Amino acid sequence: MANATANKEKSAPGANAVDRMMSLVDEDIRAVDALIHQHMASPVGVIPNLAAHLIDAGGKRIRPLITLASARALGGGGDAPRKLAAAVEFIHSATLLHDDVVDESEMRRGKKSARNIWGNASSVLVGDFLFARSFNLMVEAGDMQVLDILARAASVIAEGEVMQLAAANDADTTLARYMQIIEAKTAALFAAAARVGACAAGKPGVEARAMEHYGRELGLAFQLVDDALDYGGQSAKMGKNAGDDFREGKVTLPVVLAREAGDEAERAFWRRAMGGHQTEDDFPRAVALVRRHDALAQTVEAARGHAKAAREALNAIPHNAYRDALADLADFVVERAS
Amino acid sequence: MANATANKEKSAPGANAVDRMMSLVDEDIRAVDALIHQHMASPVGVIPNLAAHLIDAGGKRIRPLITLASARALGGGGDAPRKLAAAVEFIHSATLLHDDVVDESEMRRGKKSARNIWGNASSVLVGDFLFARSFNLMVEAGDMQVLDILARAASVIAEGEVMQLAAANDADTTLARYMQIIEAKTAALFAAAARVGACAAGKPGVEARAMEHYGRELGLAFQLVDDALDYGGQSAKMGKNAGDDFREGKVTLPVVLAREAGDEAERAFWRRAMGGHQTEDDFPRAVALVRRHDALAQTVEAARGHAKAAREALNAIPHNAYRDALADLADFVVERAS
Repeated sequence: MANATANKEKSAPGANAVDRMMSLVDEDIRAVDALIHQHMASPVGVIPNLAAHLIDAGGKRIRPLITLASARALGGGGDAPRKLAAAVEFIHSATLLHDDVVDESEMRRGKKSARNIWGNASSVLVGDFLFARSFNLMVEAGDMQVLDILARAASVIAEGEVMQLAAANDADTTLARYMQIIEAKTAALFAAAARVGACAAGKPGVEARAMEHYGRELGLAFQLVDDALDYGGQSAKMGKNAGDDFREGKVTLPVVLAREAGDEAERAFWRRAMGGHQTEDDFPRAVALVRRHDALAQTVEAARGHAKAAREALNAIPHNAYRDALADLADFVVERAS
Repeated sequence: MANATANKEKSAPGANAVDRMMSLVDEDIRAVDALIHQHMASPVGVIPNLAAHLIDAGGKRIRPLITLASARALGGGGDAPRKLAAAVEFIHSATLLHDDVVDESEMRRGKKSARNIWGNASSVLVGDFLFARSFNLMVEAGDMQVLDILARAASVIAEGEVMQLAAANDADTTLARYMQIIEAKTAALFAAAARVGACAAGKPGVEARAMEHYGRELGLAFQLVDDALDYGGQSAKMGKNAGDDFREGKVTLPVVLAREAGDEAERAFWRRAMGGHQTEDDFPRAVALVRRHDALAQTVEAARGHAKAAREALNAIPHNAYRDALADLADFVVERAS
């Protein structure tokens, strides 16, 4: 994971793909951070305070990194990719603030969630502010096609979130519905982030389509791994936030696969637990079931397939250090799970 | 107020300024309604259902009417003003959905609020969807300056809402702070609605500035009257939703004026009641106090001043039926209070 000093190091041995990409676009990502802080400024103190609490909490900046590397890989530079990278991070941040309200989350990025400190009302409104500011940044970048791409992505994300909400507590959620949800709520922004980088490099045609494909596949891999990690990933070691999806009744791929492979008693368990009637013993039982049916390994395997597709999409653009970094990023998002 | 058949009538005797403006831009406003319904479509059923519940509940469409009349008054026509009018109504609708979550409102436009039926989570997410779609509409209109104006307005609205939230329950809110709040949360969108109409008519310079001025003053008048109506307006007759601001601890101009004119016992009353410790007798007492100190008449008088400034701003644009309708609208928003 990225840390505060990551972009000061030059590809230290053992550094992961995100750290290496940070080094590669060091100057760009610093400029993006400056733009982010400039554009979250407001005379209304709650706004920068709440926004900084989230944005400075050490997110990995994966989406803006993708925009920057996509632009650089295609020969782009200067201000436009930086502004779009900041806009993408603002859309993502607004989504996180609203997600935490929707999910009633107490924690985010290892700290108390903004809603836990400032309340739901402020989180909703500051999310709106950041969302509006993302469009200010896009206007500054000055490319109408990019505005089209990101505005569409924003409405698709909202559709994905509503679909997820409607599917919550429905143990019979199908694989197809699950894929539809993660494509909308997660992959659409990764796809747009990569595509607008290409547009900013003056390559809105075949290269932008290749980068969009890369982003979409990377986003699917990313979300699949996230969903596997919520059941502890492939290792026996549990992440500190494991179980969130389970407790919120979100039916993710590990559950879909375990349910389909299970017997009638197990399906009854999933129906009860996903339906919102849980006891303390239920999460360990859920973890045991997804392991017994190899559902975590299969989920990670699915992620690996999408990461491979992401790498392959990059073959349509010229080979250089940025393209290599984007390819490594695809491997990295899967490695997180093991 | 507008009703379902308003735009079928041609300036019926006794019709108000909104009805007459509806007749004047009859074809435009029908096209805007069609655009609104097209752009709130989604395969995710909750989205169009929730959006339609709000949007079809008989709002007066004042903001899109301003955009349309502003464009027409300056010789504009065709698709662009209609798309921008729809975009403005979407921003307004998204704001209402989020406001109701923030204020925990049970009712809106005489019906159960969306959050009361579908819950806070869906209202937040569908608001996000409508907000994103408003930018899709602006992109279709294809004018970067207009995107700049509306994106800025959207961030100012969010700032105004956060300011209002921070000032809630603070009985010592000053007149200056109150004006700052209503300028941001209400007048900014009226100003942008009027200005983008001028831009869509190809008049982004002096005419657009005049129309922005008109919109801002009209918006201030509109909000001042709304705030007077919450204490029953100048007539003894109470609107059915009177008292909402009082119960939510929102310090509006009637309270500021009554508090400043009151004695120490009255100030203690306002501090307790606005601070959130209310009994059933408090609202009638508050109404009696604002009446005794002439605070309602003074609030409506302030609104009248802004309506006059709005009318005067129109002198900078050519005289025609649309300009007359805009001028009448300024009178109408004040008449509502009497």
